[in-house]
Amino acid sequence: MAIQVNKQFLDKGQVGAMIEWLASFGQTEKGGVTRLLYSPAWQKAQQALKEKMDQMKFQTYYDSVGNLFGRLPGTEPDEKTILTGSHIDTVIEGGKYDGAYGIIASFIAVSRLFEAYGYPKKTIEVVSLCEEEGSRFPLTFWGSRNMSGAYSLDRIKDINDADGIDFLHAMKSAGFDPGQYITPVRDDIDRFVEIHIEQGMVLEKNQNQVGIVSHIVGQRRYTIQVLGESNHAGTTPMHYRKDAVTAVSHMISYLTEKTKEMDKGLVATVGSLKVKPNVANVVAGEVEFSLDIRHHEESVIDQYCGEIFAEFARAATRQGMELFISQWMDVKPVKMDEQMGAWTRELAEKKNIRYQDMISGAGHDAQVFGDVCPTCLLFVPSQKGISHSPSEYTCPEDLEVGIDLLTEVLYKLAY
Amino acid sequence: MAIQVNKQFLDKGQVGAMIEWLASFGQTEKGGVTRLLYSPAWQKAQQALKEKMDQMKFQTYYDSVGNLFGRLPGTEPDEKTILTGSHIDTVIEGGKYDGAYGIIASFIAVSRLFEAYGYPKKTIEVVSLCEEEGSRFPLTFWGSRNMSGAYSLDRIKDINDADGIDFLHAMKSAGFDPGQYITPVRDDIDRFVEIHIEQGMVLEKNQNQVGIVSHIVGQRRYTIQVLGESNHAGTTPMHYRKDAVTAVSHMISYLTEKTKEMDKGLVATVGSLKVKPNVANVVAGEVEFSLDIRHHEESVIDQYCGEIFAEFARAATRQGMELFISQWMDVKPVKMDEQMGAWTRELAEKKNIRYQDMISGAGHDAQVFGDVCPTCLLFVPSQKGISHSPSEYTCPEDLEVGIDLLTEVLYKLAY
Repeated sequence: MAIQVNKQFLDKGQVGAMIEWLASFGQTEKGGVTRLLYSPAWQKAQQALKEKMDQMKFQTYYDSVGNLFGRLPGTEPDEKTILTGSHIDTVIEGGKYDGAYGIIASFIAVSRLFEAYGYPKKTIEVVSLCEEEGSRFPLTFWGSRNMSGAYSLDRIKDINDADGIDFLHAMKSAGFDPGQYITPVRDDIDRFVEIHIEQGMVLEKNQNQVGIVSHIVGQRRYTIQVLGESNHAGTTPMHYRKDAVTAVSHMISYLTEKTKEMDKGLVATVGSLKVKPNVANVVAGEVEFSLDIRHHEESVIDQYCGEIFAEFARAATRQGMELFISQWMDVKPVKMDEQMGAWTRELAEKKNIRYQDMISGAGHDAQVFGDVCPTCLLFVPSQKGISHSPSEYTCPEDLEVGIDLLTEVLYKLAY
Repeated sequence: MAIQVNKQFLDKGQVGAMIEWLASFGQTEKGGVTRLLYSPAWQKAQQALKEKMDQMKFQTYYDSVGNLFGRLPGTEPDEKTILTGSHIDTVIEGGKYDGAYGIIASFIAVSRLFEAYGYPKKTIEVVSLCEEEGSRFPLTFWGSRNMSGAYSLDRIKDINDADGIDFLHAMKSAGFDPGQYITPVRDDIDRFVEIHIEQGMVLEKNQNQVGIVSHIVGQRRYTIQVLGESNHAGTTPMHYRKDAVTAVSHMISYLTEKTKEMDKGLVATVGSLKVKPNVANVVAGEVEFSLDIRHHEESVIDQYCGEIFAEFARAATRQGMELFISQWMDVKPVKMDEQMGAWTRELAEKKNIRYQDMISGAGHDAQVFGDVCPTCLLFVPSQKGISHSPSEYTCPEDLEVGIDLLTEVLYKLAY
């Protein structure tokens, strides 16, 4: 039974105005947003959100790490809580939508439900998670992983930001005294729903309005080093060379072809290359390159890595070079809840929303909650796929459609 | 008629001792040599060489730019001059042999001839050319190109070194006042003979003692820029990408194969790569790479460039990317004198020296003189092909064989 609440309470300018309002906390000269964990801009944004929630009569509170909650208590007190939201922090010079949209959408959706239907059966909480990006400290998902129990204070000892400021000190300065830490782990969460911008161009290319995520990909990252021999570019005939640049070029061509051939959903990226000595008239003796591999099935990543690393080894041996492969990230794929996905598809169809099933190629808080409770992740389009940039943009119509569907989902889950 | 002078005057330790002696001017902590044009180390080295030549009763003098000459006047005054030597400057943290060996070898060879046979028919001059490397100022062959007339003071206006010191000022500080400049162009040069270390591993691999150079390669250098589109490494499917790294990898593989396939003597090197933004989890939107191409025939370079640049353009178009090719060096190939090459081969055979014909893949002063007079360039082996490094090394036996053959050649030309 699809509800009509949205049309009734629809204020066309509300989403756009709230996006701009939240972006004013940490706004940069280039029109982007820099809102790093525990920074003054971050503190102001959380506090302003808290006041908005207070105005809506939500019960508001922070947990020990600075996650902000706005609670609408359920009429059936034995029921667990429906949690919805996203993260308040941004990358440096980021956009206005990444994270922020998920919080605003959740706030608007729950507000509209409250105005239309009063208190829900199950408690609903809107959460503004303190940190996801890892852009101030070398650590990601600080907010959600404290709630899931994956992280606690132990995890941040001896971690500093780029200015040398200690994590614990930054936390205390923002009003979250580590000495007062009480575990933010929640055993009362029934389900988690997050809405986020896609940060890719799949929805836009397919002219769809919403993506219903079935999986968040696993990610592996490697640094690969190839050692050949540095030589004079004029006096060394081609057949005497151990040119690390040509060896690595072959590896990149090979891994790219293999990616396309193995699975449509597989992506592999060599984003960074360091050449030594990196001089025009010297054959390069050394190249180090990054390799980022993502897919939603561990087995596909395993098979892929097996095949490309075998070829890398053959290529290195063939040319008398040394090869070092070192892995520095291994995030497992996470499946979103099938039942919640099915409900969401059904609601989208009833409302004639153009949707599609999707894999998320980026990490989101939903992957942390997906490990501890049934979780649903929805996407709205990102113009040209641009994200983590002041040019990040989603049109108000698409933002509204996302809120519309989120409202339906939350009604289904909590009312 | 092969002469026997060398055995008679051979002092086994002489070459090695003179290499060490000359390397003491500008010696670095790592055991290399840094002797930049007009620097104090350079001034001391030239002055010390002048004194050595004075002791041998050579008539010594500098020209206006600091080329040092040691003259043995010929008995037939209408004959032109036989010139032999190399350059005294080094790269930063260079070796003891590059350039220096050619001066020492010429000095020893002419000294031995003088001691054995007295004054030659044709005047012989040993030259210590002031500059070849381009390692202090962005300019190469300052010594030989002043003698050939290709350069004069006009060429160095507004040229500074890395410390901001003006070329003219540096010149004056070293005792060569630009106000006193008289053109160093010489119209009395009959032939030029240079001996140099190979700076490659061809002689060593073939176990030969001397290389007789038939051509010095032409060189072209390019900067090639490929513009694709920077994207999120997780959310951008492979078929939506315009990945500049994969496009450039294909280009490098293609040009490497084409080089091997087209001509054994052709070399092409991508020594430098700059990737933007060069981050592990971002598809690279831009790559800039260097391309250095060398061969002794202009037509081969033309054909090669035509074929690879056509493929670069096809590859860029195929992937919707932009391609910019900009050339910043074009040095024509230079042929060494055939008659002098034939005489040298004949002399090497008579002395049972293991020699081979060679192409020089590196630039040398001989290429400047080769444009204005019959010129001969000889190589001795470089251990492991290493050059422009403190590890540069040629064993005393090979140094002696080179001097031996050079002495024969000079006898043939001047006596």
